[in-house]
Amino acid sequence: MNQPSDLERIQDAAVTAQAMDDLDALIDAVERAVDSGQLDAVAAVLAALRPADRVDVFESLDLHQQKLMIGELTQEEAAEILEEMEDEDAAEVAGALHPEDLAPILDAMEPDEAADVLGDLPREHAESALEAMDDAAEADARSLMAFSDETAGGRMTVDFVALRTTDTVGESIEKLRGMAPDAEAAYYLYVVDEHDRLAGVISLRHLVVARPDTRLAELMDTDVLEVPASADQEQAARMMARYDLMALPVVDDAGRLVGVITHDDLVDVLEEEATEDMYRLVGLDEEERAVDPVRVSVRRRLPWLALNLGMALVLVSALDSFERAFAAVPVLAVLFPLVTGQGGNVGTQTMTFVVRSMALGELAGGNQRRLLVKEVTIGLVNGLVIGAMAAVIALVVASDTGLAKQIAFAIAAAMTLNLAAGGLLGVIVPLTVRRLGYDPAIASSVFVTTATDTLGVLFFLGLSYLVLEMA
Amino acid sequence: MNQPSDLERIQDAAVTAQAMDDLDALIDAVERAVDSGQLDAVAAVLAALRPADRVDVFESLDLHQQKLMIGELTQEEAAEILEEMEDEDAAEVAGALHPEDLAPILDAMEPDEAADVLGDLPREHAESALEAMDDAAEADARSLMAFSDETAGGRMTVDFVALRTTDTVGESIEKLRGMAPDAEAAYYLYVVDEHDRLAGVISLRHLVVARPDTRLAELMDTDVLEVPASADQEQAARMMARYDLMALPVVDDAGRLVGVITHDDLVDVLEEEATEDMYRLVGLDEEERAVDPVRVSVRRRLPWLALNLGMALVLVSALDSFERAFAAVPVLAVLFPLVTGQGGNVGTQTMTFVVRSMALGELAGGNQRRLLVKEVTIGLVNGLVIGAMAAVIALVVASDTGLAKQIAFAIAAAMTLNLAAGGLLGVIVPLTVRRLGYDPAIASSVFVTTATDTLGVLFFLGLSYLVLEMA
Repeated sequence: MNQPSDLERIQDAAVTAQAMDDLDALIDAVERAVDSGQLDAVAAVLAALRPADRVDVFESLDLHQQKLMIGELTQEEAAEILEEMEDEDAAEVAGALHPEDLAPILDAMEPDEAADVLGDLPREHAESALEAMDDAAEADARSLMAFSDETAGGRMTVDFVALRTTDTVGESIEKLRGMAPDAEAAYYLYVVDEHDRLAGVISLRHLVVARPDTRLAELMDTDVLEVPASADQEQAARMMARYDLMALPVVDDAGRLVGVITHDDLVDVLEEEATEDMYRLVGLDEEERAVDPVRVSVRRRLPWLALNLGMALVLVSALDSFERAFAAVPVLAVLFPLVTGQGGNVGTQTMTFVVRSMALGELAGGNQRRLLVKEVTIGLVNGLVIGAMAAVIALVVASDTGLAKQIAFAIAAAMTLNLAAGGLLGVIVPLTVRRLGYDPAIASSVFVTTATDTLGVLFFLGLSYLVLEMA
Repeated sequence: MNQPSDLERIQDAAVTAQAMDDLDALIDAVERAVDSGQLDAVAAVLAALRPADRVDVFESLDLHQQKLMIGELTQEEAAEILEEMEDEDAAEVAGALHPEDLAPILDAMEPDEAADVLGDLPREHAESALEAMDDAAEADARSLMAFSDETAGGRMTVDFVALRTTDTVGESIEKLRGMAPDAEAAYYLYVVDEHDRLAGVISLRHLVVARPDTRLAELMDTDVLEVPASADQEQAARMMARYDLMALPVVDDAGRLVGVITHDDLVDVLEEEATEDMYRLVGLDEEERAVDPVRVSVRRRLPWLALNLGMALVLVSALDSFERAFAAVPVLAVLFPLVTGQGGNVGTQTMTFVVRSMALGELAGGNQRRLLVKEVTIGLVNGLVIGAMAAVIALVVASDTGLAKQIAFAIAAAMTLNLAAGGLLGVIVPLTVRRLGYDPAIASSVFVTTATDTLGVLFFLGLSYLVLEMA
């Protein structure tokens, strides 16, 4: 009695969720249905959803439930789910399937996605699955597995349309009819010469409106951008974003067309790279995800915290040399965090700006000097204003010491100097880190904040020492 | 004698730069040529470049030089340059042109880009230019100017292909021939009913390979995603990224098709939104650019620094209550920054992770509780390890006080508590800020770091006080 109403509720929820763009209710219903063993009902719901929504629902199940469910789906549905999942998660589900059951799912997947999953499987399991795949899909997958994940070759699909310079428009349209290529790669049609070298590109629209007896060699645009298969995926994505390309052809060392990077890859790479920069700036691993177990996250974050603690020894030893000043004028210990904190803020602001501008390709050679001067100036001006405000705070906090004016002067001057230093270091550190061949996002923040902390202490306590000695 | 060799050098540089993907040399050559008045040579070089490269070179000129150069270009070249520039910069150049000269350039621009430039011009100047434009382009621009910049309506192009449900495939291809629509909008063909309401979509590829006498109503996919014109551009971009769409139709309140958001807009919005989140997390304005004058940057950054200083008063008053402890045991002032600094690191890590996950739509309701528990656990575990390391540092630094063991215990316990607090606050603060209807990126970091700073002080100095009293 309970079952049909549950099923109805789930199906209603599926429709509503799709309309409402809110999957939470649906996910709850599906989890309950899986727990009570209604796998066929869940399979029906999954089949009704769009691929991206289907994956969200599927991924909300735990691994055990996922392994149960994947067997209930058609090969096409299973293929779409594995395509949309993160590679490692997909490999975990795929690894639970017998190679004979996995092979037809891999056959139905886009070749680049199938290759990614196979690459993350244990070698033996992958080999058995490859042998059980159909020959064409196996060959595609093997050729793609040769490229590493983060290169253009690792991102490209081999499921593209290549026409010949000697084809006519009419012949090309006939070819298209015969090929029925995947929709994702069929906006630009690439034209190759007799040696399979990329010779030009023609948009489908131009082909459609051209006279049927025209040869492609006359019609095609020969100024076609391409990347080598070994290029970094970010370089390929940056090129597509810059030149507004929906697809980018990938060539081998001999200039032969071997694949195409499509717009969905562009979007994925841009999102990944933005996430990577954001995460690296605060010492997070770009692979970090909400579903990671605690021990994985701890292992990922601990080294950065430990590095920060190690670098903080510089700050500790600077502070240590002022121990007597703290004993004599303890209000100095109350106030110095204002100088270190604001220096860190300015340094982090500037560094974030520089790292992002570099990622977006907006920081050419000549601009760097101008930027350095500008950031130091901004730091100085902000330092004067914030320093004046900090001086007011110092006047109040230190009012009972009889040294309030001297300390207020010291904090104003130290703040100005430290915010200028924050601007300077926020530019110099990421530029230097990049010049040394490292990712500026990954290492800059530790250096910048250590430096602004330490300098802030030296400026404020050093100046206080001088001013109070003189008093 | 000098002139031809200069021109040759520039043209060589243009070719090399395009091949090398490195524009610096070219930019230098062009700046020298403009300074020596060789505007026609520069115009020839600009014409030879791809639009994105052309804009980089053009933007490297100062505003005065830009105004000189724009008059030397054809209307199409000028249109392409204004399309690629940031809206405000484009408006500045456009504002320097007489409305009669500007109008044909606007006619040649994509309607959405023309509307953006017009929207940033002084009202009177925009009105004169609109009246001088040709009637169709003027009508398009006026209708687009009605939408605000950051909505789907503000992003869409009106230069799209709409076919009728009652058209046949053959008729549709004839229509395409007649329309010669802009390539950017011609991958998906949208199909409308007799009331101009969006009824379905068909890819150009499907149209090309279908039988010519088939009616579109039979062929089209009726499950077509759409956004209202008033929707936020981020919502539209998120939808396109999620469902791998190269274009997204925009409808008015009556469901009529009014425009299309294309893949280049998707890329722009995703980059803008990622930049916005990164910048807001550190108190930068998302409009901040390297070319801003110092006074603009100061005005943009100062309020956030001042807010941080204001919030730091909480920290100062916490520290102030331990003034006597600093006088008695000054090494406490040397060590507490370790606890506050690491608390801030963990809080910032967690907050960045939460803000980015929210932006990518990866944080649904049920996950939030799980995430909270997980982050607090990670904080505790990392706190134990980092706390133990800090205790070793304390043993060394405080070795001459006779209180080293007690202080080491206090710092280990305080570190553990503060890193757990960092995990807790890093989740709770952005979720709460979002629930209150604000952007979690914009306000969270000030609260999180103020809280971890203050708690770090209270934990460490409070514990020290207790432990040392007992000693």
